[in-house]
Amino acid sequence: MFEAGAELKQSYGAENVYDFSLGNPDLPPPAAIVEAICDLAGQVSCEGGLSYMSNAGYPETRAALAAWLSQDQGITINAENLILTVGAAGGLNCFFHTVLSPGDEVICPAPYFVEYGFYCGNHGGVLRPVKSKPDSFELDLGAIAAAIGSKTRCLLINSPNNPSGVVYSADELKALAELLTEASSKYGRPVYLVSDEPYRFLNFSGRPLPSVFAHYKHSVIVSSFSKNLALAGERIGYVAANPAIRNAGELMAGLVFSNRVLGYVNAPCLGQKIINACIAKADELTAPLFEVYAERRRLMAEVLDVAGIQYQLPAGTFYFFPKAPEGMDDIAFVQRLLEQRILAVPGAGFGYPGYFRLSLCLDKKFIQAAKDGFIKAMQGE
Amino acid sequence: MFEAGAELKQSYGAENVYDFSLGNPDLPPPAAIVEAICDLAGQVSCEGGLSYMSNAGYPETRAALAAWLSQDQGITINAENLILTVGAAGGLNCFFHTVLSPGDEVICPAPYFVEYGFYCGNHGGVLRPVKSKPDSFELDLGAIAAAIGSKTRCLLINSPNNPSGVVYSADELKALAELLTEASSKYGRPVYLVSDEPYRFLNFSGRPLPSVFAHYKHSVIVSSFSKNLALAGERIGYVAANPAIRNAGELMAGLVFSNRVLGYVNAPCLGQKIINACIAKADELTAPLFEVYAERRRLMAEVLDVAGIQYQLPAGTFYFFPKAPEGMDDIAFVQRLLEQRILAVPGAGFGYPGYFRLSLCLDKKFIQAAKDGFIKAMQGE
Repeated sequence: MFEAGAELKQSYGAENVYDFSLGNPDLPPPAAIVEAICDLAGQVSCEGGLSYMSNAGYPETRAALAAWLSQDQGITINAENLILTVGAAGGLNCFFHTVLSPGDEVICPAPYFVEYGFYCGNHGGVLRPVKSKPDSFELDLGAIAAAIGSKTRCLLINSPNNPSGVVYSADELKALAELLTEASSKYGRPVYLVSDEPYRFLNFSGRPLPSVFAHYKHSVIVSSFSKNLALAGERIGYVAANPAIRNAGELMAGLVFSNRVLGYVNAPCLGQKIINACIAKADELTAPLFEVYAERRRLMAEVLDVAGIQYQLPAGTFYFFPKAPEGMDDIAFVQRLLEQRILAVPGAGFGYPGYFRLSLCLDKKFIQAAKDGFIKAMQGE
Repeated sequence: MFEAGAELKQSYGAENVYDFSLGNPDLPPPAAIVEAICDLAGQVSCEGGLSYMSNAGYPETRAALAAWLSQDQGITINAENLILTVGAAGGLNCFFHTVLSPGDEVICPAPYFVEYGFYCGNHGGVLRPVKSKPDSFELDLGAIAAAIGSKTRCLLINSPNNPSGVVYSADELKALAELLTEASSKYGRPVYLVSDEPYRFLNFSGRPLPSVFAHYKHSVIVSSFSKNLALAGERIGYVAANPAIRNAGELMAGLVFSNRVLGYVNAPCLGQKIINACIAKADELTAPLFEVYAERRRLMAEVLDVAGIQYQLPAGTFYFFPKAPEGMDDIAFVQRLLEQRILAVPGAGFGYPGYFRLSLCLDKKFIQAAKDGFIKAMQGE
């Protein structure tokens, strides 16, 4: 994607390419992050200032993150219930490495982030996507229930969801928890509920986001600061395990071991120091970013309306997941958009053909300037 | 190890514990690194200043690294022949993920860094250690030849070697290359020579270090800036493939893909920017660190001599790998050292019982202060 976009921009000029393809925050990092970086030099110019720390991360960063996360989730989480990881991607890999045995299945509502399949496969697992309801993208609980079996080790959700923008309600989590409790009991081992939630700060639903910890004992939160603090390149994420998990200490020891032997070793030290300095005011730092994305979302909806493209207004994230026009598949329509120099991603890449993803990681002027291109693509020009 | 050392220090006071157990550079980062961190704030406070970049790393960091590496190795290496990784550990995992099929074997001279077994196993491979010659730790070429078979995919060397401190000569590399060329031809696929060389800057042998690229076509260098720039915590490493490799482009594409799907995504952006700023003067920056380790090495040898502990003076690295006393196994002797508040690592942990590892990542005053402890441990007190 990176390379395709770069080529197009070279041919037509960056101003004339409308790149809705990448979920790569384009905003500058918050000023407090930049200030924290200024302060780093003073902190690290000491003995072992940039050396390894415990595989789980700096104790002070774990403690600061635990305090913030407790507030965010509305439930007490201690430093020993979480580890710092190389992004959420590193965190998911550590978790799957820790809990999956060969042939274990990870159920995941579709559409889903395509890398999930690799993250499971890396550790002998198999991703088993279950389609969510068309258009609304609500969980299809009947289909999920039917997919659960003796090999089911995890149910992996992503809310707010990339690419659909759906936010799961407390009622959906409750129903999911009931299914998983029953399955855990029936098959004699816990089925983990894994909640990947880097977009939690972008919730436009008007309802507070429920916490998986409050709904289900064997739950794990994986997240990162890639999106809310525009810190994607530094690779700082975390895994937090519900303190109520049976053998929580054993699970945490497994995660620390996995972080080590998978070669991550520890989350990058500079990023950890930045998080330690800024996490207490993360919500404050995130507020201006929220406003920028809210404005882009409003403009995107206007453009799609004018072009006559059908979509469900996303309740969260910085993505839209509109429908390909009647009688046309998503890959063909994305190709037609490309002829208008609009880069989008086909739904097929998210296990959900018939739709396509637009990312709002671009200046609003591009959203407005792309209007004619969307109209022409719909008119089949 | 971290935790055991911390406990002991809490009980007896940090001044009274002699921690030779960790290969975790204790020196402050070079001043130029600290200056580069100061400059980062200015660089990143722009749109997307900390966002993802290509999975292979920033083009400018790759180019700067290629220029330095070309000089270091005495052979032209281009930016497209290397990728930035999450430390050398991340780099080895990417390489094994790219080239190993289930059951493939990786031959490795023992003693060896214990994580190698995990790094191979993570990707369906099997580490097959082959003992090096006792005391001298030279390669046992006969034993290596006998171990090579149809499943051999890689030969993994680490020179200068952790833990033995041995440095392989050009003659040894030449003989190794002959074995591998023959095996590649006999079994119909290339056997890769993988050289893990983060200790390359600590060469006390008086001879220039040979480059694997000059000796064998299907060779790969994996390394990091963890040791030479005391930057271990930030996790910046790289994989460079010999430009002469058949299908070098395909191999590089595989490495980039592996970096992505294993969840590393990219090497941390701040660390990459630091390397970009400092790499041209890396050798200059490393010189004072070299002096510090050389002095510690001299003192360590004196202490071991006084205590009557047998060792081969390490030709490289910041490790000693002395022999456990006659009639005593390494684990028992390390236990006896622990009673003197000296932390060491048994050779059994490196696939080479009968020896133990001492790391010189501690102030020289501890080396001197530990003298009595070593003497007492030898006297069986």
